[in-house]
Amino acid sequence: MEISRRAQTVQASPIRKFKPYADAAIKAGVKIYHLNIGDPDIPTPKPILDAVRSFNDPILGYGPAQGFLELRQGIADYFGGYGIDLTAENVIITNGGSEAILLAFATVADHGDEVLIPEPFYTNYNGYASLANIKVAPLTLKVEDGYRLPPAADFEARITPRTKAIVLCSPNNPTGTVYSPEELKRVVDLAVKHNLFLIGDEVYKEFVYDGLKHKSLLEYPEVRDRVIVVDSISKRFSCCGARIGAAITRNETVYAAMLRFAQARLCPASIEQKAAIAAYKMGIGYFEPVRQEYERRRDVLYDGLAAMPGVTVRKPQGAFYMSVRLPVKDAEKFVIFMLNDFRLDGATVMVAPEAGFYATPGKGLDEVRIAYVLKEEDIRKSLVILKAGLEAYKTIEK
Amino acid sequence: MEISRRAQTVQASPIRKFKPYADAAIKAGVKIYHLNIGDPDIPTPKPILDAVRSFNDPILGYGPAQGFLELRQGIADYFGGYGIDLTAENVIITNGGSEAILLAFATVADHGDEVLIPEPFYTNYNGYASLANIKVAPLTLKVEDGYRLPPAADFEARITPRTKAIVLCSPNNPTGTVYSPEELKRVVDLAVKHNLFLIGDEVYKEFVYDGLKHKSLLEYPEVRDRVIVVDSISKRFSCCGARIGAAITRNETVYAAMLRFAQARLCPASIEQKAAIAAYKMGIGYFEPVRQEYERRRDVLYDGLAAMPGVTVRKPQGAFYMSVRLPVKDAEKFVIFMLNDFRLDGATVMVAPEAGFYATPGKGLDEVRIAYVLKEEDIRKSLVILKAGLEAYKTIEK
Repeated sequence: MEISRRAQTVQASPIRKFKPYADAAIKAGVKIYHLNIGDPDIPTPKPILDAVRSFNDPILGYGPAQGFLELRQGIADYFGGYGIDLTAENVIITNGGSEAILLAFATVADHGDEVLIPEPFYTNYNGYASLANIKVAPLTLKVEDGYRLPPAADFEARITPRTKAIVLCSPNNPTGTVYSPEELKRVVDLAVKHNLFLIGDEVYKEFVYDGLKHKSLLEYPEVRDRVIVVDSISKRFSCCGARIGAAITRNETVYAAMLRFAQARLCPASIEQKAAIAAYKMGIGYFEPVRQEYERRRDVLYDGLAAMPGVTVRKPQGAFYMSVRLPVKDAEKFVIFMLNDFRLDGATVMVAPEAGFYATPGKGLDEVRIAYVLKEEDIRKSLVILKAGLEAYKTIEK
Repeated sequence: MEISRRAQTVQASPIRKFKPYADAAIKAGVKIYHLNIGDPDIPTPKPILDAVRSFNDPILGYGPAQGFLELRQGIADYFGGYGIDLTAENVIITNGGSEAILLAFATVADHGDEVLIPEPFYTNYNGYASLANIKVAPLTLKVEDGYRLPPAADFEARITPRTKAIVLCSPNNPTGTVYSPEELKRVVDLAVKHNLFLIGDEVYKEFVYDGLKHKSLLEYPEVRDRVIVVDSISKRFSCCGARIGAAITRNETVYAAMLRFAQARLCPASIEQKAAIAAYKMGIGYFEPVRQEYERRRDVLYDGLAAMPGVTVRKPQGAFYMSVRLPVKDAEKFVIFMLNDFRLDGATVMVAPEAGFYATPGKGLDEVRIAYVLKEEDIRKSLVILKAGLEAYKTIEK
């Protein structure tokens, strides 16, 4: 009576698996600065919470499998505001962006098929690849290059007859890199040339700095039928616990298949869909002050890290993460050290080891992902603690 | 650029795929009695809605992947009230019972492995088997036998080296059959003999009539390590749109694997978890009037169907469904006829064709699932309409 191979091999989330250490530290009265998880401290906008609090149906019943029409229309209109033409019939509401990843994977690939993903990548692609019984074919990027996409030939070296899709996350989790229109076009052309789907994880689309604009895979007419975009309200509206995302595609066959999978789980949560409808009614203007706040935080974090001895980092232009090489051999051990053993004025810092953000074994061992989801003052304190922690760790690492 | 084989072959939900016909009828002013879907008309209990309305966190943030401890403890205590010993560490909160099915399937079986399920079965097992890339091995039951479980030898004839689990749903969706302790023990012994997991879908555990008590697979000590129970608040507390379920197991290896899969989707919805905590605080006593209401409805529906010419039905003792053989060749066509063409005083009835509740092609073509989730008066009206509809259909079916 053994569990399945995929159950034996599915990785524990590197963002979440150190929680027991954190819990123990908190129990011992230690203050932890959580830079390990993208759970923003920006208050959830009032219209969202008001919609929750004014829920007034007598029965909390099922909704449609594809989500409420009003929400699907709201999302289509929102993308319209960015010049991207969508209809409500292109949108399926999902249990967070997470479920959209699963629907996309299962719709483009079968057992043994591959999806090509530049690494480091959002770690939970590994979990979903295990669940969906497909393979991740990684294409390794480097901190020294700012994690930019390599030439087409490097992609082509990894494309096999089993490759069904390329997954691109921009702005990127965990690197913060925002792919340029030229980089995206390179991948778009590859998709056409090799007859592949493109899965675009664009949940951080508004989180772009330095005057840049986010370019969506939905903006390339030559792959109109090939693109599935993963979207979410979690970061956009600071409501990660709502679990409302969307799978977006203009390919009707893909849409119909994703909807059949979605029917098996009946529907997304009704209350949070109503909250999301209220969120989209705020309009695009809501986000600008939030964006500015994150840009300031990025600057503070980047300047602090860049000045730290032995730390390698390039300034990212989007999302709210940085991938950073630390002067340690095993970032997992360093993370545990910080949680178990290191305190500065009764406080410590938690970051996410990055090995689990790679599919290639042995990669990313000395890297961590740092999320700048705390206010400036806390980021400054975290930097002081991290620096002191690295110095202390140097003396004990074997 | 083809979609995957599983995406091509995953079935549309027979409960939901006729919704476009229903929408058209509603648009034309027709009143539809919805007996196709288990979406109860019992008002959601006030403590649940109050908990939603009093949600007061400033940030709707992530919760733990396994769900809030207070809810897991609440569920453990609830099962304790039925004499079933559980701890919070046996419970993972899921996105509805639906996600618990997926976690269970992926944890016990790989591509090409089989789960053995008596058919007809809850149709969405088919969807999840497609998603998880595993096979359903069906064991056909019959309306004339009241859909009772066959002798052990009939199970053994379907067990192969690829069989990893037997799935039992009791009280059963779609048949309403409540398996006796002897029937369950037969399957328990088979699980031990053939080294299989047991997946128990027990979301209707309180819906038992005629003075019966529900027996859970969790009550058999000889399979303590083999059982995964799928649970949900949807029916118990009349809140299907909350999407809060649970996967329950005492097997620590299984629990750890399910949790790793669950980490990939981050967490269940936070607000509804708080609502569920409030629900469980109502105590077991809440349910008795609800149970009595469903028992009355069952009697009304059964008496009406049993008196209908050409209809075959046995009186079920649980859940809120009946599987019924109709005097038609193709129940799908009859369902479409009722939605498109038949009205009695401006009203019609929607039921679910049962072919999609089978894994064996060609089975269940003349059967439907009828849910008694409407109040007595509406069930009586539905019976009149159904009888008239069957008579009208007789004259046009070729």
